[in-house]
Amino acid sequence: MTRIAVPEGSLFGLTNLPYCVFSPPGGTPRVGVRVADSVVDLAVTLRDDVFAEPSLNAFMAQGRARWNEVRERITELVSAELPDTAVHPVAEVRLRLPFEVADYVDFYASEHHASNLGRLFRPDAEPLLPNWKHLPVGYHGRSGTVVVSGTDIVRPSGQRKAPDEDTPTFGESRRLDIEAELGFVVGVGSELGSAVACGDFAEHVFGAVLVNDWSARDIQAWEYVPLGPFLGKSFATSISPWVVPMAALEEARVETPPQDPPPLPYLRGGESWGLDIDLSVVWNGEEVARPPYREMYWSPAQMLAHLTCNGASCRTGDLYASGTISGPRRHERGAFIELTWGGKEPIEVAGQRRTFLLDGDEVAISATAPAVGGGRIGFGEVRGRILPA
Amino acid sequence: MTRIAVPEGSLFGLTNLPYCVFSPPGGTPRVGVRVADSVVDLAVTLRDDVFAEPSLNAFMAQGRARWNEVRERITELVSAELPDTAVHPVAEVRLRLPFEVADYVDFYASEHHASNLGRLFRPDAEPLLPNWKHLPVGYHGRSGTVVVSGTDIVRPSGQRKAPDEDTPTFGESRRLDIEAELGFVVGVGSELGSAVACGDFAEHVFGAVLVNDWSARDIQAWEYVPLGPFLGKSFATSISPWVVPMAALEEARVETPPQDPPPLPYLRGGESWGLDIDLSVVWNGEEVARPPYREMYWSPAQMLAHLTCNGASCRTGDLYASGTISGPRRHERGAFIELTWGGKEPIEVAGQRRTFLLDGDEVAISATAPAVGGGRIGFGEVRGRILPA
Repeated sequence: MTRIAVPEGSLFGLTNLPYCVFSPPGGTPRVGVRVADSVVDLAVTLRDDVFAEPSLNAFMAQGRARWNEVRERITELVSAELPDTAVHPVAEVRLRLPFEVADYVDFYASEHHASNLGRLFRPDAEPLLPNWKHLPVGYHGRSGTVVVSGTDIVRPSGQRKAPDEDTPTFGESRRLDIEAELGFVVGVGSELGSAVACGDFAEHVFGAVLVNDWSARDIQAWEYVPLGPFLGKSFATSISPWVVPMAALEEARVETPPQDPPPLPYLRGGESWGLDIDLSVVWNGEEVARPPYREMYWSPAQMLAHLTCNGASCRTGDLYASGTISGPRRHERGAFIELTWGGKEPIEVAGQRRTFLLDGDEVAISATAPAVGGGRIGFGEVRGRILPA
Repeated sequence: MTRIAVPEGSLFGLTNLPYCVFSPPGGTPRVGVRVADSVVDLAVTLRDDVFAEPSLNAFMAQGRARWNEVRERITELVSAELPDTAVHPVAEVRLRLPFEVADYVDFYASEHHASNLGRLFRPDAEPLLPNWKHLPVGYHGRSGTVVVSGTDIVRPSGQRKAPDEDTPTFGESRRLDIEAELGFVVGVGSELGSAVACGDFAEHVFGAVLVNDWSARDIQAWEYVPLGPFLGKSFATSISPWVVPMAALEEARVETPPQDPPPLPYLRGGESWGLDIDLSVVWNGEEVARPPYREMYWSPAQMLAHLTCNGASCRTGDLYASGTISGPRRHERGAFIELTWGGKEPIEVAGQRRTFLLDGDEVAISATAPAVGGGRIGFGEVRGRILPA
C-alpha cells in the first residue's frame, strides 16, 4: 500500500484534484486524478467502469451531483493508503487527450487582446468593432485537430500575401504564433431549441484546461475576410492533459471587469464567474508573459449562455476557449503578435531578439489560481515544440 | 422473397444506390440502401456487422476498394430476389442522420452567391473580396446541430441590430433564410501534418448529401465581424438522409467554370470534379429556385485540398458543404436573401408576396444528376418546417 505525500506548497494538493486520461506502463488508457506528483488510477481505486474508459466523456456526462460525490470520495481515499497498483509517478505515465472533443468554439473575450488585434489587423479603423461590448464574439474551430500537450506542432503551410505583394504564394507560415487561453469543457449538454442560462453554468461545465491556440498570422490575415479564421488556426490546438474541476476554482471566482453598456438580460444572472487565474508563457525556457485571466471582459458563464441563446445544443465534450488572455500591460499579453507589436518590436528571448516562432522553439503555458482554504492550485502546463514543415 | 421493381424513369435505379441509416418498424437503426421506393436492409442482406451500426461511419472508414466491392455486390443482389425481411417501403421506415458528423466546414464556392452577398452586406465595397478567386473561402460550423431532413426547425433568437437602430436587442430572428447546398462526406481521413492532393479526392470522399444551411440573416449581420458567422448559422443545419456515393456521380462530372487567375499548384491536378447537378428549392409547395451546381467556381476536390493544405487532418464523418449554390440568373439563386434582394424585392410564393421565412413555412430542397448509362439519379430531399420560437 502507498500513502501519497503532498509537500507543503504543492499545486496539486487535495483542493485541486484535476482529472486526466493516462496509460500506465504497459496498460490501456483510463481515467486518473493527480495528487502531488502522482496519478491515481480511478478505474482501480473506485472500481467503476466509467473510469476504465479512454476519455472523461462518460463520467462528465453523469452530471454535477455525481462530480461532487466522486470528488468527495477521492478526497477521502487519497488521504488514506492506496493499493500500489493504483498509484503511478506522473513522469512514468503517458498522458493522453483527456476527452473526446465534440464541438470546439473559440471566443475573443479579452478587451485588451481584441483592441490590440484590431489595431494591428485594421490600423485605419476603431480597434473594437461595434458588436464587441454587446456580445462575446466567437467562432467554431476544428475539433479534430485538438491535441494534448507534448504533441509536436508541424509548421503549417498555406496561402499568404504580404500587403506589398501583388498575389498570394503558397508556403510555410512565416508568422507562427501562440495564443494563451483557458478552455471550458462541457460535461452535461443541452437540448436543441433550448438555451443555457448564465446561472446554470456550473450544472453544465465540468472543468477547465489550458489552451494554446497556435495561429499562423500570415495565413489568417489573407483568408479571414469575410468568414473568419480557418486554416490559420485549424492545423493544431493544444490543451493541457489536466482538467481542473470547476469545484476547485471556487476560491478563484471574482467579478468580471465592469461591463458597460450593461449586457442584455440573457447575458446576466447567476453569480459571477470571473476567474483570478495567473498564466505564465515560457518561450524556450524564458518567461515572456504573465497574462491575467481576471482581466477577461466576458465570463465563461456568459460565453455558454451566448453560445446556446439561439437554441444550439451543446454536448458532452464540447470545448470552448476564452480567446487570447491579455492584460493592459505589455508583459501581460498572451500572443507574440501583441508582445512584439506585429513583429515590429522584437523581444529578448533567451539572449536572442525574437518575433514569431522558429523551428525547434518550444512554448509552455502554465497557470495557477487561489485554492479553497489557502495556498494555490496548478493547471500543469500545455507545451508544444515546432517541427519544420 | 421479394423482387424490387424499378419503374422506368425512377431516380433511384441501380445506377444510384444511395445509402441511409434507418429504423424499420420496431427495429434498431441500421444501414440501408435505396432502390426505387424501397429501402434494402444491408445488415440482413450482406450479413456484415458494419451495416448493423447506427451510422455509416464504420463502413465509410473501410475505404474506396471496399465501397466499390459493396456497390457491385448490392447491384447483383437487388437485381435478384431478396428476403422479405430485408426490404421495406421507404414510407414505413424512420430515416435517421446517416453518419456521425465529425467536423463540419462550410465553403462559399459560388461566385454568384459570394458576389450577391457582398453587394448586400457590404454595399460600398467591391462585391468579391481580394482572396476569393485565390482560395475556396470557408469556415467551421457546428457539427452538433446537424440534423436529418424532416427535423422541425425552431426559429432562433439572438442579438440583432438593424442599421437604423442604436443598440442591439435580443429576440426572434426576423430574417430567417435557407441556403441550398451540396455536402461532401469524408470516408477515409488523413493524418495530422499531411495534405490531401486534389487528385486523391475520390480516395477520401465517400459521397454527397443535400444541405440546407438555415441562416438567421439579422443575427449574422450583427455578429459576423471579424470572426465570421456563428449563431446566425449554428442553431441547425439540415441534411438529406441519403448519401449518394461518389461512384454514382461519375456521369455528372464536368469541368468547373474557367478559373482566372489560375489557382496555385496545390489547388490543381487530378481530373475535374465540377458536377452537373440540378437543384430545386420548393417553398410551401411552390418551386422558387433551380440552382445549378455546375456553376460552382471551386470543386469539392479543391475544397478538400485547401482544407488540409495546412496539415489539418480530416476524419471519417467530416462533412464539408459547398456554400449556397447560385447561378447567374435570378431563379437560380439558392438563398431567399438573394432571391428577394435583401428582402427589398418580395417574390410570389403560393399566392403571397414573401421575403423571409414565417412560422409554419416548409422548405424542401431536392436534386438530380445524369446517371451513368443514361437517365437521371436523385438525391431525395432535405426538408424542414419552421416552428415558432
